[in-house]
Amino acid sequence: MSDHDPTLEADVFARDCSSRSTLQTVTGRWGTLVLIALRESNYRFSALRRRVDGVSERMLSQTLQNLERDGMIVRTVLEAIPPKVEYDLTPLGRQVADQLQGLIDLLQGHMPTVRDAQAEYDGRRGTSA
Amino acid sequence: MSDHDPTLEADVFARDCSSRSTLQTVTGRWGTLVLIALRESNYRFSALRRRVDGVSERMLSQTLQNLERDGMIVRTVLEAIPPKVEYDLTPLGRQVADQLQGLIDLLQGHMPTVRDAQAEYDGRRGTSA
Repeated sequence: MSDHDPTLEADVFARDCSSRSTLQTVTGRWGTLVLIALRESNYRFSALRRRVDGVSERMLSQTLQNLERDGMIVRTVLEAIPPKVEYDLTPLGRQVADQLQGLIDLLQGHMPTVRDAQAEYDGRRGTSA
Repeated sequence: MSDHDPTLEADVFARDCSSRSTLQTVTGRWGTLVLIALRESNYRFSALRRRVDGVSERMLSQTLQNLERDGMIVRTVLEAIPPKVEYDLTPLGRQVADQLQGLIDLLQGHMPTVRDAQAEYDGRRGTSA
């Protein structure tokens, strides 16, 4: 545990605050999907790639490295021939994944509202301009 | 309100599901910061740009258009010379912003854990390889 100076509050609005880069790691294009997949169960690389539809091998590998570096997931090498590598959430990663799942549930439950807004916006753009 | 077919569940894991693009709009590099800024108060463009430290005029404009199209914010043109444009959250946008604020509070409260994990990861990389 680092000493924490309570006068140095993290401020995600400040461009150089490290909390902004961690926010981007967990909310990035693939970071969120990897975290909520690992919320279901631990995964090996190839199974995770099938779960997160559309991710390239390179992007998944980069995403996993960023999440591991920020303490959201752990990578475990299992003794086997060939060695198996498994990914799982840390306690902090689980809290973050729960919060992201709440956001996704909210959005998925309101997709009709979103689609109505999109149709209305596109209609306005089509008739004006 | 669109009719909602409960057999057609939104699935953010599916690469073509529209909920995935909405998730990216609200969790994108600037989308999140704009939403949580508008959670504090409504803003005019220039004040919002000052609040979201580091965003370019072009990126802020694009972010606001995406958020408006997905029904997260409303853009109001006020009668004045020159006309003033104000941005505010919709009810759905407020729910999404609340959820994002919960995520940010969680991350900001755990930055010492994140920094410890980063130092440990970088140390391992530095000594192996």
